[in-house]
Amino acid sequence: MNRLLVLQSDFGLSDGAVAAMQGVALSVDPDLKIYDLTHDIPPFDIYEASYRLLQAVPFWPEGSVFVSVVDPGVGSARKSCVARTSKGQYIVTPDNGSLSHLDKVIGIAEIREISEAVGRRQGSRYSNTFHGRDIFAYTGAQLAAGLLRYEDIGPAYDVSEMVRIDIPEASFEDGMITGTIETLDVRFGSLWTNITAQQFEQLNLSYGDLIDLSIWNGERKVHRSFMTWARTFNDVEPGESLVYVNSMNHIAVAINQGSFAGAYHIGTRGGWKITMKPASDRNR
Amino acid sequence: MNRLLVLQSDFGLSDGAVAAMQGVALSVDPDLKIYDLTHDIPPFDIYEASYRLLQAVPFWPEGSVFVSVVDPGVGSARKSCVARTSKGQYIVTPDNGSLSHLDKVIGIAEIREISEAVGRRQGSRYSNTFHGRDIFAYTGAQLAAGLLRYEDIGPAYDVSEMVRIDIPEASFEDGMITGTIETLDVRFGSLWTNITAQQFEQLNLSYGDLIDLSIWNGERKVHRSFMTWARTFNDVEPGESLVYVNSMNHIAVAINQGSFAGAYHIGTRGGWKITMKPASDRNR
Amino acid sequence: MNRLLVLQSDFGLSDGAVAAMQGVALSVDPDLKIYDLTHDIPPFDIYEASYRLLQAVPFWPEGSVFVSVVDPGVGSARKSCVARTSKGQYIVTPDNGSLSHLDKVIGIAEIREISEAVGRRQGSRYSNTFHGRDIFAYTGAQLAAGLLRYEDIGPAYDVSEMVRIDIPEASFEDGMITGTIETLDVRFGSLWTNITAQQFEQLNLSYGDLIDLSIWNGERKVHRSFMTWARTFNDVEPGESLVYVNSMNHIAVAINQGSFAGAYHIGTRGGWKITMKPASDRNR
Repeated sequence: MNRLLVLQSDFGLSDGAVAAMQGVALSVDPDLKIYDLTHDIPPFDIYEASYRLLQAVPFWPEGSVFVSVVDPGVGSARKSCVARTSKGQYIVTPDNGSLSHLDKVIGIAEIREISEAVGRRQGSRYSNTFHGRDIFAYTGAQLAAGLLRYEDIGPAYDVSEMVRIDIPEASFEDGMITGTIETLDVRFGSLWTNITAQQFEQLNLSYGDLIDLSIWNGERKVHRSFMTWARTFNDVEPGESLVYVNSMNHIAVAINQGSFAGAYHIGTRGGWKITMKPASDRNR
Repeated sequence: MNRLLVLQSDFGLSDGAVAAMQGVALSVDPDLKIYDLTHDIPPFDIYEASYRLLQAVPFWPEGSVFVSVVDPGVGSARKSCVARTSKGQYIVTPDNGSLSHLDKVIGIAEIREISEAVGRRQGSRYSNTFHGRDIFAYTGAQLAAGLLRYEDIGPAYDVSEMVRIDIPEASFEDGMITGTIETLDVRFGSLWTNITAQQFEQLNLSYGDLIDLSIWNGERKVHRSFMTWARTFNDVEPGESLVYVNSMNHIAVAINQGSFAGAYHIGTRGGWKITMKPASDRNR
Repeated sequence: MNRLLVLQSDFGLSDGAVAAMQGVALSVDPDLKIYDLTHDIPPFDIYEASYRLLQAVPFWPEGSVFVSVVDPGVGSARKSCVARTSKGQYIVTPDNGSLSHLDKVIGIAEIREISEAVGRRQGSRYSNTFHGRDIFAYTGAQLAAGLLRYEDIGPAYDVSEMVRIDIPEASFEDGMITGTIETLDVRFGSLWTNITAQQFEQLNLSYGDLIDLSIWNGERKVHRSFMTWARTFNDVEPGESLVYVNSMNHIAVAINQGSFAGAYHIGTRGGWKITMKPASDRNR
């Protein structure tokens, strides 16, 4: 193990919760190197937790240990688990769907339930509401420090039994792609869709071509416009919209130096849907 | 010393102030391992600084050094000090009440005033407004690095002379507990009271029993309802209120997957007061 | 090299972008010690990026490597570069003006363009929008780890060719200083001007003297008042305004325990201008 421990949660950084988790981990081994993925997951939003793990985990070295605590079911019968990805990173998390994107894109190779005997911090039994500190950080630290072998965490179970959330696939029909808006590039307000760069190739577009794009919220069309298929932001003017391949190899929609989601009040998931097709000659 | 240095402040993370403190510390010893408790203490809020130290410090290993800079009196006659807790952690801070909760709950064993001769960074005399960088981070770094012994920081003074803020105690009378709302579980909007789990036992309740709970702001009753005494959030439905033992072994009030403070506009400290008693049979 | 790597960006910390950069860097060398300057630079604000680098870089040890990614021109012809300051810190950044304050105050000694051959992460060619992860973090990590010598990063070019943004100088005329408001002490709302402590000495004031201060937004006078020239906040009452030397040895304007910018709706740069002169005897 490389002693790298990475924390994610919906706790925010405004109180002492994350620092308590860090202290528990460094009490296990003061030489752990602890980093933060994000603590700004919207409260209880398992989909976002799952998405952000996919955004970061694949770029970390083999043997890195992630602790992800977005846990609306704390204290319920949901399992506490440690998964191993196909690339050799570990994720300590409630088994509640937080592993869905990693499973789909890079693959979960193995999953084990944490036995309370090895994974529960001594002196923590009075509290049933902060498993992030008392179980997940403590277990993750032992694993990252090499003090607990993965095999000894608890019983393995079949990866097919892991809880999964629904991740819709984009579809191609009659020359048009229909997808969902999975999340936002938060700070910049760009729409990150579930359309892969590979699926998008079916539109047979060249950089500079115009796309006829519509956005729906349920039955209501919220936006329609024609925008450039661009290699990068600077292929269009400041303030102009573009469609591009984002850093996760999916199709995204942005305003160069502006916020698309902010400008047009666009949301994510739920009833939100996006369609793209080549602009017909008539539209040019 | 274990080279762990932990920073807390009311500076926020939006400018370069915290990074300047880190740079000063790492110039003392580049092998220090610097973490953040929080930098989101509301500006000048010594009570919050004191509370957040209690939330984190006890979980860190012996020899960890904390630097806490919430300092409305910067440049005044207030002392700059380093305290040692009964568990062997050190806190470098203005002596302005920031140590009150630690003192009350785990105990301050010793306290020393920082001599400017050892604790003032060279070349920093032009500035009188950033002791966080020029004195506290610099002193904390030397201590954490083992380059300055605790005894050599400056003269010890009696712990009884340390500045303390008032931390009210909850009271039990006529079958009812009356407490204050010390702070919020910021991200989730749960109320964290000053009622300890031990005090609460005087109500003789079993999990699942109903509590008759009122919240007052000065003379005005702001909220009254009956809610479940629960072991954990999942003992009630989403959207339902509960009373539970929080991660600091105190009594808290929450909405499962909602924000109690947000829903009912509840604040902390000042005139805010909370009462709890068993619901009479009539109320069930 | 001391293995210190410091990240700055306008990405925020609410998604996985910064953690992806950290993962890339730690895949180069898991023993790097990564810190954050700030990720809260307002989107695309090169002036702020430049200012925050000056606020932090000079306090870090020689050999520290900074990666600053505020990059409105990502994917355009702007250069990717690594600069070396006169004090021996390195900054990996788009050459877009982000180095202007460092150059002006401590001096850029040398600058090199990153060759894609050495500075582009393998397997990243599909994406043209996240050079922070695929080029800047990757290059910075190699440099900080000692795996890539500065000389081998790419061709040096003349520091005079580096892109610079305009940093106005304050001026002294007829007993009055006129300056700009460069930025805010974000959390506290104090105005940080471009007037140096040395320039201010021309007013020949003693601590406690009154200053006649006006603030203009273009042609409109937004504020005029008389306030104390103070050594530190506590020389005036809570709620009282003061003029003082800030932690960067420049003149600043604040309300003790309040927010000057918030109270009077004061902004930065653009048309904002501030004038100070000794209050005449008539005003006292």
